[in-house]
Amino acid sequence: MTELRGVGIGLGVAQGPVARMAEPFPPPEDVASTRSAEDEGARVRDAVSAVARELEERGAQAGGAARDVLEAQAMMAEDPALLTEVDTRVADGKTGERAVWEAFASFRDQLTALGGYLGERAADLDDVAQRVIARLRGVPAPGIPDPGHPFVLVAKDLAPADTALLNLDMVLALVTTEGGPTSHTAILAREKNIVAVVGAADAGSLADGTVVIVDAAAGVVTVAPSQEELDRAENRAAERASAAAAPVTPGALADGTAVPLLANLGKPQDAVQAVELGAEGVGLFRTEFLFLSANAAPTVAEQRDAYTRLLSAFPGKKVVVRVLDAGADKPLPFLNDSHEENPALGLRGLRALRASEDILREQLTALAEADAATRATPEGPADLWVMAPMVSTVEETEYFVALAREYGVKTAGVMVEVPSSALLADRILAHADFASIGTNDLTQYTLAADRLLGSVAAFQDPWHPAVLRLVREVGDAGAALGKPVGICGEAAADPLLAVVLVGLGATTLSMAPTALADVRASLLSHTLDDARRVAEAALAADGAASAREAARAASASQKVTQP
Amino acid sequence: MTELRGVGIGLGVAQGPVARMAEPFPPPEDVASTRSAEDEGARVRDAVSAVARELEERGAQAGGAARDVLEAQAMMAEDPALLTEVDTRVADGKTGERAVWEAFASFRDQLTALGGYLGERAADLDDVAQRVIARLRGVPAPGIPDPGHPFVLVAKDLAPADTALLNLDMVLALVTTEGGPTSHTAILAREKNIVAVVGAADAGSLADGTVVIVDAAAGVVTVAPSQEELDRAENRAAERASAAAAPVTPGALADGTAVPLLANLGKPQDAVQAVELGAEGVGLFRTEFLFLSANAAPTVAEQRDAYTRLLSAFPGKKVVVRVLDAGADKPLPFLNDSHEENPALGLRGLRALRASEDILREQLTALAEADAATRATPEGPADLWVMAPMVSTVEETEYFVALAREYGVKTAGVMVEVPSSALLADRILAHADFASIGTNDLTQYTLAADRLLGSVAAFQDPWHPAVLRLVREVGDAGAALGKPVGICGEAAADPLLAVVLVGLGATTLSMAPTALADVRASLLSHTLDDARRVAEAALAADGAASAREAARAASASQKVTQP
Repeated sequence: MTELRGVGIGLGVAQGPVARMAEPFPPPEDVASTRSAEDEGARVRDAVSAVARELEERGAQAGGAARDVLEAQAMMAEDPALLTEVDTRVADGKTGERAVWEAFASFRDQLTALGGYLGERAADLDDVAQRVIARLRGVPAPGIPDPGHPFVLVAKDLAPADTALLNLDMVLALVTTEGGPTSHTAILAREKNIVAVVGAADAGSLADGTVVIVDAAAGVVTVAPSQEELDRAENRAAERASAAAAPVTPGALADGTAVPLLANLGKPQDAVQAVELGAEGVGLFRTEFLFLSANAAPTVAEQRDAYTRLLSAFPGKKVVVRVLDAGADKPLPFLNDSHEENPALGLRGLRALRASEDILREQLTALAEADAATRATPEGPADLWVMAPMVSTVEETEYFVALAREYGVKTAGVMVEVPSSALLADRILAHADFASIGTNDLTQYTLAADRLLGSVAAFQDPWHPAVLRLVREVGDAGAALGKPVGICGEAAADPLLAVVLVGLGATTLSMAPTALADVRASLLSHTLDDARRVAEAALAADGAASAREAARAASASQKVTQP
Repeated sequence: MTELRGVGIGLGVAQGPVARMAEPFPPPEDVASTRSAEDEGARVRDAVSAVARELEERGAQAGGAARDVLEAQAMMAEDPALLTEVDTRVADGKTGERAVWEAFASFRDQLTALGGYLGERAADLDDVAQRVIARLRGVPAPGIPDPGHPFVLVAKDLAPADTALLNLDMVLALVTTEGGPTSHTAILAREKNIVAVVGAADAGSLADGTVVIVDAAAGVVTVAPSQEELDRAENRAAERASAAAAPVTPGALADGTAVPLLANLGKPQDAVQAVELGAEGVGLFRTEFLFLSANAAPTVAEQRDAYTRLLSAFPGKKVVVRVLDAGADKPLPFLNDSHEENPALGLRGLRALRASEDILREQLTALAEADAATRATPEGPADLWVMAPMVSTVEETEYFVALAREYGVKTAGVMVEVPSSALLADRILAHADFASIGTNDLTQYTLAADRLLGSVAAFQDPWHPAVLRLVREVGDAGAALGKPVGICGEAAADPLLAVVLVGLGATTLSMAPTALADVRASLLSHTLDDARRVAEAALAADGAASAREAARAASASQKVTQP
């Protein structure tokens, strides 16, 4: 039995035999073409336009996000600049295949050099090139295998054209050797709720037919598991299905300690699903959606309408709104204009807002107006809390709380996602009404590992005892000062880690609504004493993997039966 | 009295009247030229070539690093691509002045977009453009003022052409409103030992003739100071001069507690100066110089020769060598090839070496051979310690120490520059023989503020109590396990912070050799109890500035007289 590690997408577990995606073509040989440059040029144009039509058709069939992606690919294929690059090479006597390969590779390198989102799109270009070369050769394009039975698909990284047409009845899970948490495979796995582990570098060695367990919650692929392991995985999948079907109750531990379960939301229209899945409020409402697609900051009226819509969905319930979190990684023309070498360590979050205070003041104005508007409705207002992102000093805390108070905000707090804020939590909570720990960024900074970079994904694990130590600092400070400490990073969506976080002093947990059922069930099977013991076990470990193991062992030995 | 804050370069203090550098020309008006395109083109070519010759002459006069920079500027001026850009605009009927301004601005933007070192070179292009436009207009180029008496030069950011010809007898200090710690102003201030505060944004409002105190150690410019403040500054300058002239003794506190003072070195040939200034060994030897200019990794023999030269300079003394610290911020063709969005959070330090273990093994081989070679000399060997950069987990520590032992390294340790390593220092020091705290990176990650980014320079302060907390974690772990804890970041070069660091548990301090005298004097005026009390005062503060103030107050009230 071997375990391969990667980044799990979601919490599911699945099992089945591996089927590998056909390897892409190697670079076509650089030999002189026997055809005229005109003939080669015409062949490439025919092939490109056939591939573009095929991608568009696939897109139309798939619909949704996949359609947009495939249409973008079709446009890439027919990019005149690319075709010019091909023509130059064909004119030099190269074959159409080689010219296509070189021209796309050169564009790929340019995209890769841009990094980030565009860099991750480089794989799309490779896919288009492969399809064009296959068409030129008259052979089938590399793609999804068809073994005739359900299978676990193992691939380098899936191109949108592949994932869009996945037959879910046949694909049990996805495993990729490349690609990080923002790769297409990850994005589409989330959208289609497919169990997936991405960036499992060693999965390249898996042979067709080998049975594996794909555990997204743990980010582990177990190769050739024992019958006992297979049974356990099946039980977990069944438990998960039953948790999803269990009645929706307020979040609480086995001893009755309330741990309100809240939702992370990105748009007001996501509120409906959150309420259906039992969210007791909103623990993190991201306001970026209002700003990201705009060339100018949204008006106060536009913002007020959006916030009113949000608050109206949660009468009498807590709604924590985070003011704009923008930085040079997601530049806004009206806020950032400078390129930064390390945007994650740059003028982002509250730092950027402070440099453009008008935007922050407008946002607070809109929030106050939305709050007032919902007070007049028959259902009554929500309990509005407002917090600032990327706060790293006591001075910034004082600044933000004072400003929020100017606009009548009753409950003003800060995100704790920078190590300094966790280390000085006692002094920060002396000024702020609450703290909300963003575990994704806190882990990124504590381990100094970019959360979006595949090559350091192994460090990006909120189970790391150093991260847990910082969470405990904040939990202790909150308990000493009687101030709430929420968690709104993805860590809260891990059912066992959620127990640890409560044991470290978290008073609420906020997560993607789809994770609520799993976490609700997990909390109900631990008392507060259990949670503290499980947390101590994790804290005492040397690393993330051993912390997870220690917590599992402690949880198994102490778990009480659900009343 | 007002205080302006910026980033101090070095530790000096100076005072005098302000003289501002003439503001650069605003963009020339975009009006149609009355000359023919040919005439405008010829005028620009004459002006460009005159400016290039002038820059070369200034370079030859200045010599040293300035010459290289000025010759690079002369080449920029005559870049054919730039002249083509000018010609295109002149052909459109623009004036030569406007065409030069636009063409240079477009190149500037491209450089700026590249960020980092190249981005900081963008200011050089502006300077060349200004000189060419001045020449076209027949007026003097903006530059160094000449008030006829010694002055504190205030400028946006100095171009190499300006700093290279500074008359040190006239310039008392430098203050810039832009530019970070890697700007030309900073680099040349260090090289020429000029008191400087860079990036003091508010210094733009200073009027000619206003008297200021420029305190590089504190990063503060005091405007219109009182006589008492002027006297104090003068005393400090005098003390500093006398400390520099004081006899070189081993680093120690007033009560005799030894605190060995070591040097940070970047090249073996820097050893001579370090020994002269009383370094008791080397606390950080950076090995990047062997790799940065190379297209391939240096051979074992090349490395062995360099390490042998280093070790020979310190017979019987401790020499801590750090293995290669490279990342995507300083990519090496044989080590990194991928662009990273946030190189400071990427595959750098030990992470990168582990991915190319051959390079690490060759470096350890060369170190072992150098150690063996110096054992055979009459002076005997140095006490070689080897450490890994950017260690963030216990597992990495175990990996590095085990590998170093394979090569016979007796003392193997780790740099603590990632918050997780400080938080788990007790478990890391269970495996490593020593820890060395890199305060620059530790501050960068703890505050999540890029150490090279001017807009977040205010966060990059090792006095922040959160950073001090982490230093204490490492100091406590070292004391509990009886393992040495060194400091090799720039914090150790701040005479008062050096006392705090010793109070927090640092057992050795390593710094630029020019800082040794100041730190030696400061340690001699505090006992270990003093140091602990000063450290407690700093830890209890809410922020960096108040920590510095609290430490100053505690130091002043408790300072013993030097015996």
